[in-house]
Amino acid sequence: MRENGIEGKKISSAVIKRLPRYYRYLQDLRNEGVMRISSEELSRRMHVTASQIRQDLNNFGGFGQQGYGYNVENLKTEIGKLLGLDRNHDMLLIGAGNLGRALAGYTNFANRGFVVQAIFDADPEIVGHQICGLTVLPTEKLEEYLSENAVDIAVLAIPKKAAQETADRLTACGIRAIWNFAPLDLNVPKGVSVENVNLIESLMLLSYRLGKDM
Amino acid sequence: MRENGIEGKKISSAVIKRLPRYYRYLQDLRNEGVMRISSEELSRRMHVTASQIRQDLNNFGGFGQQGYGYNVENLKTEIGKLLGLDRNHDMLLIGAGNLGRALAGYTNFANRGFVVQAIFDADPEIVGHQICGLTVLPTEKLEEYLSENAVDIAVLAIPKKAAQETADRLTACGIRAIWNFAPLDLNVPKGVSVENVNLIESLMLLSYRLGKDM
Repeated sequence: MRENGIEGKKISSAVIKRLPRYYRYLQDLRNEGVMRISSEELSRRMHVTASQIRQDLNNFGGFGQQGYGYNVENLKTEIGKLLGLDRNHDMLLIGAGNLGRALAGYTNFANRGFVVQAIFDADPEIVGHQICGLTVLPTEKLEEYLSENAVDIAVLAIPKKAAQETADRLTACGIRAIWNFAPLDLNVPKGVSVENVNLIESLMLLSYRLGKDM
Repeated sequence: MRENGIEGKKISSAVIKRLPRYYRYLQDLRNEGVMRISSEELSRRMHVTASQIRQDLNNFGGFGQQGYGYNVENLKTEIGKLLGLDRNHDMLLIGAGNLGRALAGYTNFANRGFVVQAIFDADPEIVGHQICGLTVLPTEKLEEYLSENAVDIAVLAIPKKAAQETADRLTACGIRAIWNFAPLDLNVPKGVSVENVNLIESLMLLSYRLGKDM
């Protein structure tokens, strides 16, 4: 998948996937009081080549200056804007099990502007409970809620078997971004983004490496 | 990074990363009662090209047969073995906050042989509590525990600032696999595998796409 860059240039999804990591390093640098950094020094810290750094960041306009390096604060701000961190994102969480509760309670998300505004669950025993100051709503009320509230991102922390049907309902209501923790590939209409977090597959990769002599 | 395949062939990490997804589809096929599948049919289901499927699976020896397709059960079993799913993995969890508790309570892991055997936390208020039948131990006891118990995978569900020091202690005790939820790149000795799950970076990618016209 390729997307438009600042000047209409196509940017590969590989570059986009690296942006959050750049953002993290720039934030650490700023917190250390570093004001400027060369691609070479950034390369040493991030363990990627300086030429990749220059190529990646060139995609987004000329943040760097020859022989001068990058202005840490400016670059962080610009990448932050690209990542949408200059605005708030209202999230709706579906699934108030262990994982859903953990996600709802993760203050790092809210600190970055990703704020859970409502929590839904299909289990009548969980509906009505308070989680992080929100009353868990029944999944039947999803359409009603979405007709009255603007939501940017839906978080699916539900079992695999309910995930596709729930995704269908969400996208029918206009949801354009799904953060999916259920272990399946969702089918969604064009224009809807899905970001998967598949915990068990991540564990399997570790397990694979453990089985090898390294 | 490249690793040794079955016949000493080097396998790219890109192929390895795709194995859990193959495993998942094969499992679903088996559950549907499908006994054989061609690379073309698997291609339609997985939305990758049949030639990529053939290339990927060829890395691991000849699971497929020309004009005959793959034996679903055999292929699932073989990939499962490669992923280490034919044996149990004892895990140690560090960090009994919201995320740590959710991970400890995730029955899918145990069903796959990834079993949390001990939970540690640095907070004296949490130490001694019961989580999923385990008593939370103080982080000071980490070395003592590891001298007496074999652990395959350490799970880091702790804040960024404590993560590197904890990883150092774990690897000094011989831990060779770390499942890291802290938002930083750990420095670990050669031969130690780290698999990162960076939730906030995953959210940022969604947020990036929301900011684009698609």
